[in-house]
Parts: sequence; C-alpha cells; structure tokens
Amino acid sequence: MTGTVPAPFTADDYAARMERAARQAAEAGLAGLLVAPGPDLVWLTGYTPTAVTERLTLLVLAAGRDPVLVVPTLEAPDAARAPGAPALTLRHWTDGKDPYAATAALLDTGGRFGVSDNAWALHLLGLQRTLPGTSYASLTEALPMLRAVKDAAELELLAAAGAAADAAFEEIREVAFAGRRESDVAADLAASLRRSGHSQVDFTIVASGPNGANPHHEVGDRVIERGDMVVLDFGGLKDGYGSDTSRTVHVGQPTDEERRVHDLVREAQEAGFRAVRPGAACQEVDRAARAVIADAGYGAYFIHRTGHGIGVTTHEPPYMIEGEEQPLVPGMCFSVEPGVYLPGRFGVRIEDIVTVTEDGGRRLNNTARDLLIVD
Amino acid sequence: MTGTVPAPFTADDYAARMERAARQAAEAGLAGLLVAPGPDLVWLTGYTPTAVTERLTLLVLAAGRDPVLVVPTLEAPDAARAPGAPALTLRHWTDGKDPYAATAALLDTGGRFGVSDNAWALHLLGLQRTLPGTSYASLTEALPMLRAVKDAAELELLAAAGAAADAAFEEIREVAFAGRRESDVAADLAASLRRSGHSQVDFTIVASGPNGANPHHEVGDRVIERGDMVVLDFGGLKDGYGSDTSRTVHVGQPTDEERRVHDLVREAQEAGFRAVRPGAACQEVDRAARAVIADAGYGAYFIHRTGHGIGVTTHEPPYMIEGEEQPLVPGMCFSVEPGVYLPGRFGVRIEDIVTVTEDGGRRLNNTARDLLIVD
Repeated sequence: MTGTVPAPFTADDYAARMERAARQAAEAGLAGLLVAPGPDLVWLTGYTPTAVTERLTLLVLAAGRDPVLVVPTLEAPDAARAPGAPALTLRHWTDGKDPYAATAALLDTGGRFGVSDNAWALHLLGLQRTLPGTSYASLTEALPMLRAVKDAAELELLAAAGAAADAAFEEIREVAFAGRRESDVAADLAASLRRSGHSQVDFTIVASGPNGANPHHEVGDRVIERGDMVVLDFGGLKDGYGSDTSRTVHVGQPTDEERRVHDLVREAQEAGFRAVRPGAACQEVDRAARAVIADAGYGAYFIHRTGHGIGVTTHEPPYMIEGEEQPLVPGMCFSVEPGVYLPGRFGVRIEDIVTVTEDGGRRLNNTARDLLIVD
Repeated sequence: MTGTVPAPFTADDYAARMERAARQAAEAGLAGLLVAPGPDLVWLTGYTPTAVTERLTLLVLAAGRDPVLVVPTLEAPDAARAPGAPALTLRHWTDGKDPYAATAALLDTGGRFGVSDNAWALHLLGLQRTLPGTSYASLTEALPMLRAVKDAAELELLAAAGAAADAAFEEIREVAFAGRRESDVAADLAASLRRSGHSQVDFTIVASGPNGANPHHEVGDRVIERGDMVVLDFGGLKDGYGSDTSRTVHVGQPTDEERRVHDLVREAQEAGFRAVRPGAACQEVDRAARAVIADAGYGAYFIHRTGHGIGVTTHEPPYMIEGEEQPLVPGMCFSVEPGVYLPGRFGVRIEDIVTVTEDGGRRLNNTARDLLIVD
C-alpha cells in the first residue's frame, strides 16, 4: 500500500511531463525510458498501483512514440483511472503470459534505455534475457535531473508541505520530553504531521542523548532524561509532495559544549544555505557546510552528505555531496542538513528544505534554528 | 518505513537459514546470493532498514564463506542490532564511496548470482558494470522455493495470523454496510485487523456491486446499496507473518444468479483445496479450481491465477498457476482464491490460506464460506 495522494495536476500536465522526459531521453542518447511504479511513475502519470508486486507494471516512453503503460490485466481498470491515463495507451498482460515479451515488442532491440532506479531486478533481468541486445542505465545515472527542477505548482506544494512540517514542530516543542519514551514523542510528532495535513508520515526520528549520535536512529524505547540533546527529524507527504526538516532541542539547560556544537552546526547550515545559487555545483553546498565543521575540528563527526533532493519523494536527486558537479538550477529543492555526531554522547542536526531561486536560496522551513529548550 | 515486526526467532535460527540458503545456492550452481532489503532479508537476518533508499544494503551469501552484510555506515548501528547480526560480518561503506566496488570485493568475478526479485535495478546495474563477468538470476527464478516451506514455528505464526484475520471478519460481518461508503467499511476492517493483533495492514479491499468485478479494486467512495454483492479481501502482518482471506457477502437477499455464482466459486475453492497434497504440482490446484468454473460456463470470468504463497510477505512463491510444475511439499502455505468477475455487475471471490500437510491441505482460515447476508 502507499499513501500517495495524487497531486492536483491535469492530464495535460502529465502529458507534458512525459513528452519532456522522452525528449530528454533522446537528447541523452537513449532509445527510451522504462518507468517502474514509484516516484517516477507517480510524477509522470499520477498512477500508483494498489500494491507493488512481482507483476510487471512499466511505462515505456520513447521520443516520437505515444507513451504505453504495460499493466497486468487485473490492474488495468485502476490504471485507466489514473490522472495521466488520457495520454497513455494501456497494454494488458494476463497471469501466465510473459510480460517481458509483451514489453519487448515496444522496444528498440538494440537500444539503450533509462530505467527507474527502483525497478525490480526481477524485471530488469527479464528484459535483459528477452532482449539481449539492449542495454540499460539507471535513471539517476542517465537523467538524474529529470524530476529535479520543480515548476511553480510543485514549488507551491513543497512550500505548503514545509510549512505543515514547521507547524508540527511548533506543536512538538510544547509537549513533555523528560520522562517519556522516544516512541511516545514520535507518536505525538506523527499525529502533529497528520494534523497539519500530511497524508503519509515517512519518518519521525526522535534520537535522544547517545542515540542522537546515530544519524539514522529512528526511535526507540529509551526514556528521555533531563539534560538530553534530542534530534528531531521528520517528514512525509502532503498532497503528494514531501517535507523533511530537523531541529535539535535540549531538555533543560545545555552544557557549554552542547551549546557550542549546536552553534557550530547552525553556522554550517547557514554556510550551506548561503552557497546555494544558480550555477554553483551541488558539491559546493556540501563543501561550504563541511568546511565550517572541519575548521572547528569536528570534521570526523560529520559522517553523511549535506543534503538530498525532495519532490514526490522525501529522498531523490540532486544530492549535495562531494563529487557531484551538477550545477544548481532555479526550481531545484533539496535539504541542507549538516550534523555532528559524538559517539556515545549526543548528536546535533539542523535541516531545512531549500529551493534555488535566481537570487540564491529560499528556505521552505522557517522555524527557529536556535537551540530550543524543552521540558 | 515498514511496519515489519521481527518474528520471535533467535540468532541461531537466522544463522541456520543463511547456511541453508547458501547451500541451496551452491546446489543450484550459483556462486552466491545477493539479498536486498525486503522479505528475503527479513527472513534471513531479521533486519529491515529504517527506510529503503538508493543507499545500497546487500547481504552476500556464498557456501563456505561467512555471510557479509554490506551496509551504509549511517545504518550500521541499526544493522548491528538485528536479530541475525551475530552471524553476520558488517561491511560499511560511506557516502561518496562506491558501494559496488566494496561489494565486488566479496564476489567471485566470473560467478552467477541469485539476486532478490525486489533488489533495485540501480544496484543490479552497478554490480553488472563493476563486475562485467558476473551474471544474475532472480531469486524467484533461481531458488523459487527458498522461503516456501515453512517450519513449525513459522506455521504457528501463519496460523495465528489467519485466526486473527478470521476474527476481523467476524467483527466486520456485524457492521452496517448499506448506505455507507466502501472506504468506511474498509476503515472498520483495518481497525478490526489491528485489534486482532496485526501490526501492519496490507490491504482492505471492499468492492461493492460493479466494483467487485475488478479483482484489484481496493476501495472507493461508492456508497454500498442494499442488493449489492461485496467482495472483502483483507490481510496484513501479525508478528511478522502474513494473513490474507476473502469472503463475499450480500447486502440483503441475493438474486438466484448471485447465489448460483457464489455457490460455484465456493465449489471451485473447495476443489482447489482438495487438490492440495504432497507431490501434486502447483498448477493442479489452479486447474482443479478453474475446471469447476469453466465447466459451468464462467471460465472467461475467472481472470487471475488461483493462488500465491504467503509468509513474511502476503505475496510470494509458490504460485498456483498454469505452467507451475513445482510439486507441493508439506509446510508450503498459499492462498486458494478462485473468483468470478462479471463486468459492470458484480464479483465473487473466496480465499483461504492453505498449508500442505502429509495428508493433504489444512486451511488456516476457517470462517463460513456460505454467502453471508449482511445489513
């Protein structure tokens, strides 16, 4: 099941996206794109199958040809109701038949195709077996920026999702922390996200004390104590577009060191934000944030990249990471989220979604970045 | 996010499963198995990453070698706490490094590997690029029965999940149907599933009147009317193991034709059930159920296979489908779920999970299969 709510786009919007994707594929030397259920398919057609199973559903896009959605017969009635369906030809296949043969008939037998990152290996192997002359590249590799530059309607939805996550933070800073389990606070956070309009909660990280030093600690039974730093990192989908923000709060008064590390991460986040401008490479955002932390001697404790794109998912290209030379383009949206993680002790992370404008970055999260004291 | 709750197995249980899988792989001529997050990894290690992303997590199994879990550095602390972790060596890779190079060092450069069906194409392409001499087969193709034969503890968990789904059905037959939307009844059904112990609800199909003729119709805003047939198909995970059952009910008194079609499907379901015995091919279960429906002239309206396996997922091999010659083995668990779908009018489906015993089939769903009249 997915909780994806179709965003308010028309059949024409989806048709335009499909046409643009096919054109970009041709420009990149690809014979076409093979799009699996998940964020690529939602973005291109508005369609999400009831369940993603071993049954093949695949959108085939090639420049100059009409888009075809290969779909199990069982699921064809649902697919026919997708918002993008008017621009699609559905090609059914029935249990017991070979879906790869049905798909192969649509493909250039010697072509190179871009394929959704999250397409199942089962299906890729089926196509490779059926059409040994074809070759494949992941969409992230072949067309990494396909969904990266958001249009005005998408930016509005992302800004609304960001504001909703901020509203959840304003609620959560008022709840009791000390003496409650991380999982209790996480449940409050999930409820706040839903109250603020999220249809899907993707993560509600509440990482207290030493758990905060594990950037991917989700939530546990640890009872939060007075004196803990607590990393809060939360988000999900609202009207089909993602939110993702982090703040680190302190239960009662922090020590000087805790305050110093928090100030450092805030300064790094600010530096990353200030590096956002059209034409700058993604890696410059990472370098700017990292330099602040490294210069203060904490470089070894910032153990992840600085950010990731966001759109119909909460995790997508572009990535703000060393080695990523992709220039920033107005309309791109991504997180800027440096952190410092002191093993066995505590962690600090501060994260905003930022969009690129002609003049620089614009934050889609706007709650205070000071070290907030909670109870 | 996943709602997967670890099943109550020990590190030794997981170690034994990994050893068995590696041995079976070697017997099948494979150099090893590459296991992605999802049901295969849960079954082999008890580990489910917080989120499945583009960051590579991969279990590498090969006979005579210790199992290695390739894992992002960020997620290593979580992986180290998995129930199967004591039998694993963790190999970390850090953002910005090439995870395929790290994995390639563990692989026989000319070998053929089984890979989880749901491994991402991104990762398979990364390995194919890094090790061009290797070849790959999906686990469903290479070792379809890896998870198919359940042990006694697993059977107990599946029976408990089935009983919990039955309890949910006993609740739902008492609620009001007429005048309420499908989505309202589905919400009741989800609540009942959770009350009966499900930690994850995978599907709650409520398909009334003409919607019942679409086997994969999930749920909609249609208001259920007196005189409707309503297909209910629901399940999820309880203690890490799946439930999946369908019953078709009628709101008020059915017509003769509705009753006749329901009787027919019930008879087909019974015939499929009776075909279950050790040594019979999977396709015989499909044929037995299908023959009943075809003989009555409704063959064209039974538009899906008769069943699918169940275990740590609600959808896995073995499949009860024409062409599947795999012999049934005691301990296998799968659905027997024939249906008849009359476009624009109504549908009927009856589904039980059945396990193979030495003496034939044993149903794990045991609510009445008569046409129940609801309000």
